[in-house]
Amino acid sequence: MKPINLKTGILALFLLGSGTIGQAQEVSAMKAQKVVSPEIASDNSVTFRVLSADANAITVYGSWMDYGETLPLTKGKQGLWSVTTAPLVSSMYHYNFFIDGVTAIDPTNPEALRDGVRYASMLIVPGEEAEIFELNETAHGNISKVWYESPSLNMYRRMYVYTPPGYDSNKENYPVLYLLHGAGGDEDAWIALGRASFILDNLIAEGKAKPMLIVMTNGNAWQTSTIKNISGVGEITRENRAQFQGKFEKSLVEDVVPYIEKNYRVKATKDSRALAGLSMGGAHTITASIEYPGTFGYIGVFSSGIFDANADMVKLEKKFTALKASGVSTYWVGCGKDDFLMESNKRLLAILDKTGFEHEYHESDGGHTWANWRDYLAIFAPQLFK
Amino acid sequence: MKPINLKTGILALFLLGSGTIGQAQEVSAMKAQKVVSPEIASDNSVTFRVLSADANAITVYGSWMDYGETLPLTKGKQGLWSVTTAPLVSSMYHYNFFIDGVTAIDPTNPEALRDGVRYASMLIVPGEEAEIFELNETAHGNISKVWYESPSLNMYRRMYVYTPPGYDSNKENYPVLYLLHGAGGDEDAWIALGRASFILDNLIAEGKAKPMLIVMTNGNAWQTSTIKNISGVGEITRENRAQFQGKFEKSLVEDVVPYIEKNYRVKATKDSRALAGLSMGGAHTITASIEYPGTFGYIGVFSSGIFDANADMVKLEKKFTALKASGVSTYWVGCGKDDFLMESNKRLLAILDKTGFEHEYHESDGGHTWANWRDYLAIFAPQLFK
Repeated sequence: MKPINLKTGILALFLLGSGTIGQAQEVSAMKAQKVVSPEIASDNSVTFRVLSADANAITVYGSWMDYGETLPLTKGKQGLWSVTTAPLVSSMYHYNFFIDGVTAIDPTNPEALRDGVRYASMLIVPGEEAEIFELNETAHGNISKVWYESPSLNMYRRMYVYTPPGYDSNKENYPVLYLLHGAGGDEDAWIALGRASFILDNLIAEGKAKPMLIVMTNGNAWQTSTIKNISGVGEITRENRAQFQGKFEKSLVEDVVPYIEKNYRVKATKDSRALAGLSMGGAHTITASIEYPGTFGYIGVFSSGIFDANADMVKLEKKFTALKASGVSTYWVGCGKDDFLMESNKRLLAILDKTGFEHEYHESDGGHTWANWRDYLAIFAPQLFK
Repeated sequence: MKPINLKTGILALFLLGSGTIGQAQEVSAMKAQKVVSPEIASDNSVTFRVLSADANAITVYGSWMDYGETLPLTKGKQGLWSVTTAPLVSSMYHYNFFIDGVTAIDPTNPEALRDGVRYASMLIVPGEEAEIFELNETAHGNISKVWYESPSLNMYRRMYVYTPPGYDSNKENYPVLYLLHGAGGDEDAWIALGRASFILDNLIAEGKAKPMLIVMTNGNAWQTSTIKNISGVGEITRENRAQFQGKFEKSLVEDVVPYIEKNYRVKATKDSRALAGLSMGGAHTITASIEYPGTFGYIGVFSSGIFDANADMVKLEKKFTALKASGVSTYWVGCGKDDFLMESNKRLLAILDKTGFEHEYHESDGGHTWANWRDYLAIFAPQLFK
């Protein structure tokens, strides 16, 4: 192709002057507010600011706080409200403002997250702990939003597939981690909140994890995809949810795994398949692994366990024993000390102990948080496919 | 693999009861508000509702209104504010609330859009006009977020690639549409706001457009990707923007096109390459096509044109004449009657007329809006690669 001559006068014609920029996009044409928020100080305290001459009360909730807690902003000159937190631990957080009680994202923060049906603003407090999930100067894998036929659920569904750096340019076959989200989430959660792609980019770049695909499905068996059926989530009750029991696990093993193994360059053996999930996804992981022994050689259960205190432990023990016999290289369990699912987690650990199932247990500080789940993935992924 | 027995008692163990759901995800743990908003009535009027006992004033701006206009909500019982619009034309809109002057998305609407650095809630008023960009019961193409090396810009950059239904399961080579966003947007704009993937899904399903790839780059030559450099956008001034003049076009033709033709199953000929863009992306389209004649066989310029009234028209005419000689099957121009870039558009039409460049001109109602750009794509795509 012809090389371009950047010196030609005509190129200057197409310069959009700054006067035009404001009008060029519709959403961008909203009220501009000259406010800096969030602002991270050198001691990792964070200042939040909102401009409102008329509000009566503005508060902020951040994911470093306890549930239900909020921090009030104080009104300053010219309607500029602000508050500064104590120094925060280096991590990724999300937060919302409440403007006279109305939940809002920070209007001056360009990074927001969707978790199921809700949005929050995103905040990364830099530091050593955050490096593992930041977008660093490494090669990056690609993320595809993939539609596939699910005969088990009689639906056309959507999932995300991460392919590692180099996947497009070589001919190798890769192992696959199937990574499951929790209740309220969907196929987007492990990317937006879990930063799974950046965690793997960084681990692979450092030689700490093998290059692998990550497959992130939608664990809500009643949904085509959140983008179509999101408003239906609220209509799922305990009663009508029961009819979907076990169906996601069936679709995962019988629809998703074969689709991936047909359409991607992957190794189709137990020892090249890992399965992990958090909370509801941890329960899906437990069920899918014991119902399909011999399918997954690596298993990770994050902040989850056996939810039902009245579970028939004898039946379960038989299934765990069969799974153990099928050959599992790694059974990894992680839970926060303050996790509200600790009792379920303990029931899982008890059955692993009872059946002599070799496993690794990692008990961390904190509770049922993405900060923990990102950590767990960063600890679990390096153990896979060795 | 072993079939699953859905009747076994243990499956019920992993049922997450509704009591657990609320706590399971962090962001979901925010204040729940039992409010229906937006609500679309049978006459296509739309009611917006927000709950706030304390706010002094709440207004809404929607993209069906004129810029700067807002509609006040009225406070009713128990702090429920609401307003109902006049019936709206079937289309896709975006809107924001202003809670005592603070820009907010609708807290009860699960669908929000990002346009560059701002967020708005999304609203589709159903009807004949909306069918073309809705998620219908057809096969869907996949969207990949792809990282690539850009030697021209000395950066690792991100783009989106739409592959049509069937791409993964057959061996065909496909043509490619390179589709460019406007100022303030990025690689996400044509998917989130432009609904390009659904428009192509629907056109392909109806046999109206050939299956093709769509490549959506980031037209801001100073950005790696919005997700990394988004906060830098505000620091781009007229002066420092000038140094990037022509660089995006160079990277598009010299970096992106070769990357796509190496890594995807595509036809690498002029007659299998189309280039189109809106606003700033229309200017990019004009520049890239005249600077690289013989590269693109199909050209679309949406709501754009030759921005500089003092352009050297003689030089430009020579370039358009050379482009014409290279063989362009379709030169398609679309602009809204009320578009603020109408004068630029007219300069483009004048030069096409002057050089005897066969072209199609589509003048629509309305202005510089995504409603127009979605329409233009739906008109332009069926003319490609015939």
